[in-house]
Amino acid sequence: MPNGKIIEPRVLKGFRDSMPENEIRKKAIIAKLEEMFSSYGFVPIDTPVLEYTEVLLGKGGGETDKQIFHFKDNGEREVAMRFDLTVPFARFMAAHLNELPLPFKRFHIDKVWRGENPQKGRFREFTQCDFDIVGVDNAEADFEILSMMDASFSMLGIQGYTFHIAHRGLFNAFLSHLGVEEKAVEILREVDKLRKVGAASVKESLTGITADEAKAEAVMRFITKDDQQEPFLETLQRLAMLAGGENEHTARMRKIYGYLESAHIANHFVYDPSITRGLDYYTGIVYETFLNGLDQFGSVCSGGRYNNLASLYTKQELPGVGSSIGLDRLMAALGELDSNMLGDSRAADVLVMVMDEELRPWYNELAAKMRGAGLHVDLYLPEGKKMGVQFKYAELQHIPFALTCGSNEHDAGKVTLKDLRSRETRQMVTLDEAVKTIKEGLA
Amino acid sequence: MPNGKIIEPRVLKGFRDSMPENEIRKKAIIAKLEEMFSSYGFVPIDTPVLEYTEVLLGKGGGETDKQIFHFKDNGEREVAMRFDLTVPFARFMAAHLNELPLPFKRFHIDKVWRGENPQKGRFREFTQCDFDIVGVDNAEADFEILSMMDASFSMLGIQGYTFHIAHRGLFNAFLSHLGVEEKAVEILREVDKLRKVGAASVKESLTGITADEAKAEAVMRFITKDDQQEPFLETLQRLAMLAGGENEHTARMRKIYGYLESAHIANHFVYDPSITRGLDYYTGIVYETFLNGLDQFGSVCSGGRYNNLASLYTKQELPGVGSSIGLDRLMAALGELDSNMLGDSRAADVLVMVMDEELRPWYNELAAKMRGAGLHVDLYLPEGKKMGVQFKYAELQHIPFALTCGSNEHDAGKVTLKDLRSRETRQMVTLDEAVKTIKEGLA
Repeated sequence: MPNGKIIEPRVLKGFRDSMPENEIRKKAIIAKLEEMFSSYGFVPIDTPVLEYTEVLLGKGGGETDKQIFHFKDNGEREVAMRFDLTVPFARFMAAHLNELPLPFKRFHIDKVWRGENPQKGRFREFTQCDFDIVGVDNAEADFEILSMMDASFSMLGIQGYTFHIAHRGLFNAFLSHLGVEEKAVEILREVDKLRKVGAASVKESLTGITADEAKAEAVMRFITKDDQQEPFLETLQRLAMLAGGENEHTARMRKIYGYLESAHIANHFVYDPSITRGLDYYTGIVYETFLNGLDQFGSVCSGGRYNNLASLYTKQELPGVGSSIGLDRLMAALGELDSNMLGDSRAADVLVMVMDEELRPWYNELAAKMRGAGLHVDLYLPEGKKMGVQFKYAELQHIPFALTCGSNEHDAGKVTLKDLRSRETRQMVTLDEAVKTIKEGLA
Repeated sequence: MPNGKIIEPRVLKGFRDSMPENEIRKKAIIAKLEEMFSSYGFVPIDTPVLEYTEVLLGKGGGETDKQIFHFKDNGEREVAMRFDLTVPFARFMAAHLNELPLPFKRFHIDKVWRGENPQKGRFREFTQCDFDIVGVDNAEADFEILSMMDASFSMLGIQGYTFHIAHRGLFNAFLSHLGVEEKAVEILREVDKLRKVGAASVKESLTGITADEAKAEAVMRFITKDDQQEPFLETLQRLAMLAGGENEHTARMRKIYGYLESAHIANHFVYDPSITRGLDYYTGIVYETFLNGLDQFGSVCSGGRYNNLASLYTKQELPGVGSSIGLDRLMAALGELDSNMLGDSRAADVLVMVMDEELRPWYNELAAKMRGAGLHVDLYLPEGKKMGVQFKYAELQHIPFALTCGSNEHDAGKVTLKDLRSRETRQMVTLDEAVKTIKEGLA
């Protein structure tokens, strides 16, 4: 393979390697989220990274989106890499309807690819974390998704997070009441830009769309909360009045809110009528999640209720409610907040150092015993290296403890343990004592 | 999006969905392997799925292999999906040499893609599990990889597995002694086919390659063990004699074997001189792993020592030793052996059934409390469904327990628990007692 020419080991624009420190933390966060989802009875699925372009985009490969990685495979099939986890899930539900329980509650945490121009914090390869409940349209399912979101953020140790929630049905009822329902899709897409472009710009666009400044003003009034502290149910009542009175949507919202109160988590939710989620398939609750003081990261968890997941692939109606966490963005935000929240990134709990090459079989035995006691144990492999080199190796990998044993320890059946952070040494103790000290030091 | 036309929800040839039962088991096996690798001080990394074709193949995109998924992206770059985890790892090492500790011990468990024609049990998208130690060339590192392989297979509960191990250096020494060293690459590639095509066919090919039947016979004698029970060190001694005497390779093998004996795992290893691994970059130990009685699955874990991982990208020599588990193949083999070994596939430990819609807030509370006690709890979401429907839902998801509580239980502050496997019922017990019964029933 080598012909003398060295190839530059570069990666593609918008792609990146994940170094051990990042990957250890990412895996730990994913494991915690998976355990949380499993504790709610959600199950994992997986779908192919490559699918027929037609299946992913709902049309042939002619005018495919520039944002999608797509190509002709060796069998002349038009194929594309998945750009989200929702479309493959819809295809999956349609393909396996007869085998699956309904409601079906699944999670899927994996990579997706988009060809968009990389900006700060945006990549062409990134990890999404999706969870959905499909096959039931009621307040109980809406509450379960919200409850699981709250439990997940709380479990990650995040102190300040707020779920901004609204109801697409109520917004549509308002637009009907205002007599602009046929412009609903355009209007909600404009409103969705509010955070990005500001109120003045949105109002101008709305005036253009409705050709009626008074109506544009009415929409602005609906989506604006003058009092940010306005209690949830008061906002809801005010909006109901603007929309022509109470309806099924306000009733749904009240029921959901009742459950949130019973669960003592209502204080994490605000009714935010400016939330619409640009996509037109949402029909019920919609929400975005902001970490307090970290608005620059945008929403780290968004979603809502849709009335028909898989209409592209099946005639069976599949209502659902779901949510997606942008894992890379969440990790960036947590790192900004407090890097301790990302968890440890040590390569091992303890390094068994090699003071005497003759004692390797004993070092192997010590390592095996400590592994048996549940510790992560690295054993220094190169031969004949000085202590200083071995300490450097431990430091570079954030390994907090080292076992430094020579023939004295071996002959006495004891070990010597060094805490590499405090530089404290426990000389000639039993292996059990050393294990105990390490575990206490890590707790 | 729907225009009335229904698109068939099909997947590409050689690709497949992973259903919850499979995905739950796969995740559990991966989690166990990751914990094992971490306990040896190995760290995870991740690399992009897409890379420059030139970087992955070591040449331009002109005559790329048919087995690779490659294409021009929207920026006219020649890109390809990774076809293994070794080449991206080599590129990663070269790119990050200055940031990484040496030796560097990493694992990487993820999907790779190959366009080969799908056969029984072969797919175009599959999961590899790689682990390598880079930056050190000694018996200690060789032993650590073998020891970790043994610990992993033992931990998975597999009773009968055998590591077939050989030494490429010793084989080359033999070929030199025989005077056919310039044909070494061709010869080892032929020998690698032994299991597939049989001895007669290999011998015929070898006669062609060496143009000397006596030499072909000598090679056959070297790679053939007449006595399958021949002890490891006796095989080694016999091969050393055929290769012209003891050398650095036999010394290395003896040292490794000494460590295996000290660790009491030598009985899982046989010296199998027919193992060569077709690829020419191996220079030291090579090995394949077979599950007893399941030869049809081939090797489920293979690898060896190479003297230069990243020569394509850097002039720094990076010797290493590594191994790759074919996870899909391993799971297929385990399922054939004893599906219990694949672990549980239940969607939850217990289903909270809904006997009375008015009691939903209490059911939510029961579910939350049981989650707090560490259980995986599903709560039935649809309204007004009969018990029979709810039991069916539990059964379809292999949920072993159900809480069946109405207003009697609620008013008494008790619960009723059903074991859905034995149909035993514990009526009017405390929630704590129910949790205890469930945990005992799952243990």
